[in-house]
Amino acid sequence: MGFKNKKVLITGGLGFIGSNLSIKLVELGAKITIIDSLIPEYGGNLKNIESIKDKVAVNFSDVRDEFSIKWLIKDQDYLFNLAGQTSHIDSMTNPFQDLEINTKAQLSILEACRKHNPNIKIVFASTRQLYGKPQYLPVDENHPIIPVDINGINKMSGESYHILYNNVYGINSSVLRLTNTYGPRLRIKDARQTFLGIWIRNLLEDKPFLIFGDGKQIRDYNYVDDVVDAFLLVALSDKTSGKIYNLGNEAPISLNTTAALMVEAYKKGAYKNIPFPEDRKNIDIGDFYGDYNKIKKDLGWSPKITFEEGIERTLKYYENNLNDYI
Amino acid sequence: MGFKNKKVLITGGLGFIGSNLSIKLVELGAKITIIDSLIPEYGGNLKNIESIKDKVAVNFSDVRDEFSIKWLIKDQDYLFNLAGQTSHIDSMTNPFQDLEINTKAQLSILEACRKHNPNIKIVFASTRQLYGKPQYLPVDENHPIIPVDINGINKMSGESYHILYNNVYGINSSVLRLTNTYGPRLRIKDARQTFLGIWIRNLLEDKPFLIFGDGKQIRDYNYVDDVVDAFLLVALSDKTSGKIYNLGNEAPISLNTTAALMVEAYKKGAYKNIPFPEDRKNIDIGDFYGDYNKIKKDLGWSPKITFEEGIERTLKYYENNLNDYI
Repeated sequence: MGFKNKKVLITGGLGFIGSNLSIKLVELGAKITIIDSLIPEYGGNLKNIESIKDKVAVNFSDVRDEFSIKWLIKDQDYLFNLAGQTSHIDSMTNPFQDLEINTKAQLSILEACRKHNPNIKIVFASTRQLYGKPQYLPVDENHPIIPVDINGINKMSGESYHILYNNVYGINSSVLRLTNTYGPRLRIKDARQTFLGIWIRNLLEDKPFLIFGDGKQIRDYNYVDDVVDAFLLVALSDKTSGKIYNLGNEAPISLNTTAALMVEAYKKGAYKNIPFPEDRKNIDIGDFYGDYNKIKKDLGWSPKITFEEGIERTLKYYENNLNDYI
Repeated sequence: MGFKNKKVLITGGLGFIGSNLSIKLVELGAKITIIDSLIPEYGGNLKNIESIKDKVAVNFSDVRDEFSIKWLIKDQDYLFNLAGQTSHIDSMTNPFQDLEINTKAQLSILEACRKHNPNIKIVFASTRQLYGKPQYLPVDENHPIIPVDINGINKMSGESYHILYNNVYGINSSVLRLTNTYGPRLRIKDARQTFLGIWIRNLLEDKPFLIFGDGKQIRDYNYVDDVVDAFLLVALSDKTSGKIYNLGNEAPISLNTTAALMVEAYKKGAYKNIPFPEDRKNIDIGDFYGDYNKIKKDLGWSPKITFEEGIERTLKYYENNLNDYI
């Protein structure tokens, strides 16, 4: 509806969520430009947009390039700002690259909007990682922000810039704090996007997958179509500017249950619990699930796909496309 | 006592608080290295250390220089990390420079400590600006962090890195969130360090000084000697690592009262209320005063100098040294 013939820019549009969003927006009649630099360790993959490749413009560039972003941002109606470094471990070993992408580039993008397209509407992909170890559950948007890794700190700044540019300069910006998102087009080469990626890969390659710790840690998951819906709803609403919304799921489950459900959906496979590796233990957040009542109340959003259904669809996708993802 | 023959590095040591801290540490017998790049818009001033110039080593360099910092950090017992861009307005007009100094350089410094001197004890100078507009008064350390300008966001990250490196890597780091600090050696050329700077200058030059708005805004002030004491106490205590402390004053006063007390102390002078300039109105925080009970409880710190006494000492200092500061 609202996106027919609208000009939409998607940073990280070849990545997991960005490509699913692009596919949906093509259906809705939007005119899409994707920005992606295809850094090998990140989520970008040209196969992700195979089905729409003739219907979108792909601009290969890095959001850290403050000059090209100026031109790309002009005349756009919407910016879905999803490009980011997502690996918690990589942020600890290469904190400066994480800072450049998740913080500095965000400032470049917002400065470009302020100078060249102040009427654009932005939805920024943030993360529940900002909260750190939960002080209470479920975690709502007022929970203290105490990141436990460099990625969480740098995303916190990137997010804050968006709210600041909304409040001070009137650049309409909204923030979604995502939890573990999964579905077709997730990076499954390794655990850089979420541990579910490597679990899926191992399952499909008939290898046992590994749970760190006793597996009783609670997590919540969103299927990517539900997350795409949230991005679209937030973009189209007038009342979301300057606001921060959690996503989440009312049925959080333990890692052991997650693993068992995956094996059940795939009808074979195995997993095992191992002690936490040292580098992960230091930055683990314990149990987590988010309170998404704010977006439910403001926009009527709720996740529609159960984990059982979502993981089945996901595994089917990778059974048919495994070679494009490993 | 505890600083006798200790090796102490002070970033921003030619600045307002850094120089007062250096003077005190010379008294206490510490071996001091100052890092300062004397950026003209910042608080560094060689006249600030006139009285101790033969007793400290001054290394002219920028904390953004990740190579020199490695060498300077080695073998130091303490790091008082005070170098920073402090102007709220400048952070909005030049957000990238603020990011480089208040965020990226902090990461360089902490990486240097991690690799070359993990046993160092760090005290980081943060700011009450992180809190943004108070949601309640007095503002304690658990108050939500919602910065209203770029400086607040970038200082938030710089602060978070210190806590993270304490928690993950065991680099003993503590944070002080300063409120308006004043006293001898404050930059008074303009309002870049606090509005008190330009008020003092105008008063001494027999010009009326300007209060933005109706002057009913509440502020709290700390005299610089009290702030120096807080830095020293935090550095010497074992129980401060990983902790964040507000400073503050139990006698917050309005801007109008502040102005009246200054004129009274100087025994002449005038001020006037004018409407907020547009660029300041957007980032003003309204009333503010901090709750400093946490540092009082942990370390017994309380401010000892009243505003009346402190401003009298300050004005006397500038009467005798005005030419070095304008």
